[in-house]
Parts: sequence; structure tokens; C-alpha cells
Amino acid sequence: MERHFDEELKNLKQQLLQMADEAQEMTGLAVKSLVERKEEQAREVFELEKNVNRLEIEIEDEVLKLLALHQPAASDLRFLTAVLKINNDLERVADQAVNIAEISLRLLKEPILKRLIDIPHMAKLSQIMIKQSLDALVRHDADLAKKVCESDDAVDRLNEQVFRELLTYMMQDPKNIKRAVDLVLVCRNLERIADHATNISEDVIFIEQGKNIKHHQADQA
Amino acid sequence: MERHFDEELKNLKQQLLQMADEAQEMTGLAVKSLVERKEEQAREVFELEKNVNRLEIEIEDEVLKLLALHQPAASDLRFLTAVLKINNDLERVADQAVNIAEISLRLLKEPILKRLIDIPHMAKLSQIMIKQSLDALVRHDADLAKKVCESDDAVDRLNEQVFRELLTYMMQDPKNIKRAVDLVLVCRNLERIADHATNISEDVIFIEQGKNIKHHQADQA
Repeated sequence: MERHFDEELKNLKQQLLQMADEAQEMTGLAVKSLVERKEEQAREVFELEKNVNRLEIEIEDEVLKLLALHQPAASDLRFLTAVLKINNDLERVADQAVNIAEISLRLLKEPILKRLIDIPHMAKLSQIMIKQSLDALVRHDADLAKKVCESDDAVDRLNEQVFRELLTYMMQDPKNIKRAVDLVLVCRNLERIADHATNISEDVIFIEQGKNIKHHQADQA
Repeated sequence: MERHFDEELKNLKQQLLQMADEAQEMTGLAVKSLVERKEEQAREVFELEKNVNRLEIEIEDEVLKLLALHQPAASDLRFLTAVLKINNDLERVADQAVNIAEISLRLLKEPILKRLIDIPHMAKLSQIMIKQSLDALVRHDADLAKKVCESDDAVDRLNEQVFRELLTYMMQDPKNIKRAVDLVLVCRNLERIADHATNISEDVIFIEQGKNIKHHQADQA
């Protein structure tokens, strides 16, 4: 019985990793569609979203089944409840990627505003954060999870920088405004993805250390 | 023992309602600060956030304790795991309110751009959605929860409308751009709050009907 449960936990971890991979791939494709101005990748994002939505439901059902059947205690219980939350975060990462793909399709109908350099950089950072947060989960690596939380500042700084640059484009010519605002929204979506990676990492630290580190900074402030 | 568990579930529900009240109050105060151009309400939002963060941790700890001690099955298990997710959604509503309060403080340093009519309307709708989603939870009312999901469209339409109006302000005068972009971001925050209310309502429907309705529309599309 116990061995069976371990096997099921391992499968669940695999499903979660697959979900993370797909959410990350969707982010990459959405930004690629935006940078290379190709419709095809945006369409792929919409296709992949269906998988992610299915996976989310499967993972949730599996966690409920395991909780009901095995009534786990202590660390397994912490793990399973964290999986529910991580699952939710990954689904929202996929949502953000869909938002970016939608904006990309809209921008494809307009002339190009500027070559995008910082936005793919932000996307790359966010994708790495998602990957590392799941690596931290699988390897029980609370230090890696803490590193992910720290990377969030770099994404925020990049976001600020792009925002200021886009404002100057808007000031230069009112014809730029609509497209620049769309790019501001893309940056917000990427910032959100990094936030989700931070949430996941906080959950990993919680699993590993058995305590909730969230909001410690907020409480001290 | 069973009676004790019922008592604990009742207390947990009370904590969750308190958290929802505070998140909702934060939203109201943040938008009030923005509309009436008062710093004080924004500061109150930051104060209330500390409570919400504390409550989130308390609720999460309580759910884990109940899962471990009582090893509930079927509907109680579904309820407790849904509480974890709703808790998470409410904490993010509070985050959105903090974002709005920060933007409000920034805008206070600038001359007024326009009288805000639709933004407080959007805020009101989002607040009602949060309140109704929790009412649906407490009253086991899946129909009310479905109604909340439908209200999301009204918020999206309002968001579109304000967005177009703000674009015209930006086009008219480059000096308007920075402030108008800030108001676009406020609208996105309010739209997110409505999304969280929709998530909560989906969880309520899941608890009541024992099946996951999420993404059904997406899968059919």
C-alpha cells in the first residue's frame, strides 16, 4: 500500500512537471509570435492551452483522490496541498501566455513599432524562474527556491525600464500609443508569470521547511 | 468528535468570510483614494494588507491541521481543498488593491486627468462579485455562483470601454499619456479582481456539484 502511494506521488509529480513544461512553452511561443511577428505561434498557444486546462483538472482530481484514499499526514499532506496551489499557479501562467498571444495577433495587423529586445529577455527570465521553481520542488532544494524568489526583482526592474521606454514612444507620436500600450500589457503579463514562479517557490520552501515564509517581509515592513 | 469537526469547519468559514470582507474593503478604499484623490485611504489599504496576509497564513495552517487530524472524505475534503484555493484568490485580490493604492499615490502628485465614473463602477461590480461568490459558498448556492461567473462579461465590457476612452485622452495630448496608462493599469487590476471572483465561484460550483466545471467553455471552443 505505502509503495503504491509513493508510485502515485511520483506520477503526480510527473504530471505537474508536464504542466509546467507546457505553460513555459506557451510563454515562449507567445513571445516568439510577438517578436517574429508570426501568427502561427500564437495559434499554437491557443492549442496548447486546451492541454493545460485538461491537465489542471486531472491533477486536481488526482490530488483529491490521493487525499481521500491515503489520508496522508505531515510532509505528504503538505506536498499534496502545495501541488493544488502550484497547479493553480501554472494554469494562470498559461492564461498569461494566452493574453500575450492575443495581443500579438492584434499587433500583427499594425505596422511594427520597434524591435523588441527587453521583452524577450523578460520572457526568458520568467521562463527560467518557472523551470527552476519546479526543479526546486523535484530536488527538494529550498535554496534554489529562494534564488527564484530573488530573481523576481530583476524582472521587476526590467519591467520598469521597458515601461519608461514605451512611454517615450507614446510621447513622440500619438500614432504609437495604441501599440505601445499593448506592449505595456505584455510586460505586465510577463511580470505576473514571474510572480507565479515566486509563489511556487514559496510553496516549495514551505514543503521543505514546514513553515510558511510568505509575507514575512510584508509583516516586518 | 464529529461535532467538534463541524464547529471547526464553521470557524474556518468565518475566517474566510473575514478575509473576503477585508479584501473587498481594500478594493473599495483603493478606488476611493483614486477617485477622491486622498492619500489617507491608500495608506489604509497598506495597513489592511498586513491583516489579510496574516489571515491567509492562519487559514492555510487551519486547513492543513483539519486535513491531518480528521482525514475527511468526500464533500468535506472537497470543501477544505477549495478553501485553500479561495484563500489564495482572496490574497491576490488584496494584492490587486495594493497595486491600485500605489497607482493612486502616484497620480496624487499629478494634476487630475479626468473625473472617474466608469472605474468606480467597475470596482463596485468586482466587489459585488467577490461578496456574492462568498455568499454562494456559505449558502451552498451553485446558481448564485453561476450568476457571478456571468457577471464577469460586464466587467470585461466596461474595461474595453474605459480602455478606448483613455486611448483618446492619450492621443489628444502627450502630457496625458503617463496618467492615462496608469488608469489602464487600474482597470486591469479591477478586471483581475473580477477574475478571482469567477475562480472562487467555480470552486463553489465544484464543491456543490462535485464536478469541475472549469474550462468547459474553453474545451468546447
